Amino acid sequence: MNSPADIQLLAFDVFGTVVDWRGSVAREVQALGLGIDGAAFADAWRERYLPAMKAVRKGTRDWVNLDTLHRENLEGVLQEFGIADRLDDAARSNLNRAWHRLDPWSDTAEGLARLKTRFVVTTLSNGNIGLLTNLSKRAALPWDCILSAETFKAYKPDPRTYLGVAALFDLNPAQVMLCAAHATDLRAAAKSGLRTAYIDRPLEWGPDRLGDVPGPEDRFDFSASSIDDLARQLGC
Amino acid sequence: MNSPADIQLLAFDVFGTVVDWRGSVAREVQALGLGIDGAAFADAWRERYLPAMKAVRKGTRDWVNLDTLHRENLEGVLQEFGIADRLDDAARSNLNRAWHRLDPWSDTAEGLARLKTRFVVTTLSNGNIGLLTNLSKRAALPWDCILSAETFKAYKPDPRTYLGVAALFDLNPAQVMLCAAHATDLRAAAKSGLRTAYIDRPLEWGPDRLGDVPGPEDRFDFSASSIDDLARQLGC
Repeated sequence: MNSPADIQLLAFDVFGTVVDWRGSVAREVQALGLGIDGAAFADAWRERYLPAMKAVRKGTRDWVNLDTLHRENLEGVLQEFGIADRLDDAARSNLNRAWHRLDPWSDTAEGLARLKTRFVVTTLSNGNIGLLTNLSKRAALPWDCILSAETFKAYKPDPRTYLGVAALFDLNPAQVMLCAAHATDLRAAAKSGLRTAYIDRPLEWGPDRLGDVPGPEDRFDFSASSIDDLARQLGC
Repeated sequence: MNSPADIQLLAFDVFGTVVDWRGSVAREVQALGLGIDGAAFADAWRERYLPAMKAVRKGTRDWVNLDTLHRENLEGVLQEFGIADRLDDAARSNLNRAWHRLDPWSDTAEGLARLKTRFVVTTLSNGNIGLLTNLSKRAALPWDCILSAETFKAYKPDPRTYLGVAALFDLNPAQVMLCAAHATDLRAAAKSGLRTAYIDRPLEWGPDRLGDVPGPEDRFDFSASSIDDLARQLGC
């Protein structure tokens, strides 16, 4: 059993870990009445996320934030679904802001409030600062701080993001714990010396598809079924 | 009378506007029992703040955050008061963190909570992100976001700070209002196109000394006697 005694700060991944991006985007797409499957559209939009960040990560493209990448990707998905002529510029801008209106999982707000009594709790998301702030305000998520890839001008899993959080708070990496539903994110954080908490979100990609789950060789410091469960394990 | 109708986001200066830095630092210094006047020490420490930032502002020194500048300035003030041999390194580090433990003015927390019902409320301070987060957590200040000179790697009154806030939220400068107790800060924000709210803090420098107050030629959008009063004027 790991001791939380020296952990000072919890940094949370957001998309999938804290909020249900798929269900939320699917609902907004469905509500447009375009006759397409909202969940399939959400999946297709999200699948363009990693490739879109790649150029920025490799340094072949200057920093652009996630709102910009989402918007570029939206154009491609609209083409893919054959509905590019059905939404004007204002409607596309509004749909792009669906990512600012994602609903939290049901345990999120209470879990964060419990963790906040003992730890500094911050976001550490590839979502941009405005997106994270708008989303958190709408869902009344009680963060102590909003940190983003945009803060560091580097996308996770770049070590500058994990080490950057520790540096901003004058902490050692081992005093910071990344909390995420994605093994890739946690493995990279561990490589930078952070503590790690896996939060299981089996419905992130819907009932029929596995997410970025841990393999048999993964050893994370904590493994929880929800943020509330993590709070319980950490004695909050 | 100015209309708040198109304002979306309020960015608050922190030292002096939101918290009583002088009284808080003075109390910590006094409690050390060094036989010096805590308020005089706090004033002397704060007076080194603007000169210390100048090299970073002019670009002759690489970015360093306010914790670093405070610590360098502390060494000078200890010399000035003839007590450099009375505090070891750990005691100096702890005293430097007094800036993470500043008490808010009595109207701050309630005023921000009222404003938050209608606007996005964020810090925009020369204090670093860790400092602002620790201070706000201790005082239970309900910010939606923590923004700092450190976010932009530029100290106020550099226009990159004011325009940077608007850009992060994809707003026009006129949709952002700077709220501050200092005319210099407000004048610079207005020059960048932001709206401005002056908050009177007559005791920032103690009862005998005037702060950075507006002159007869200044025209700010709002002028309030407290954050609570600003909330009232904005209809919150």
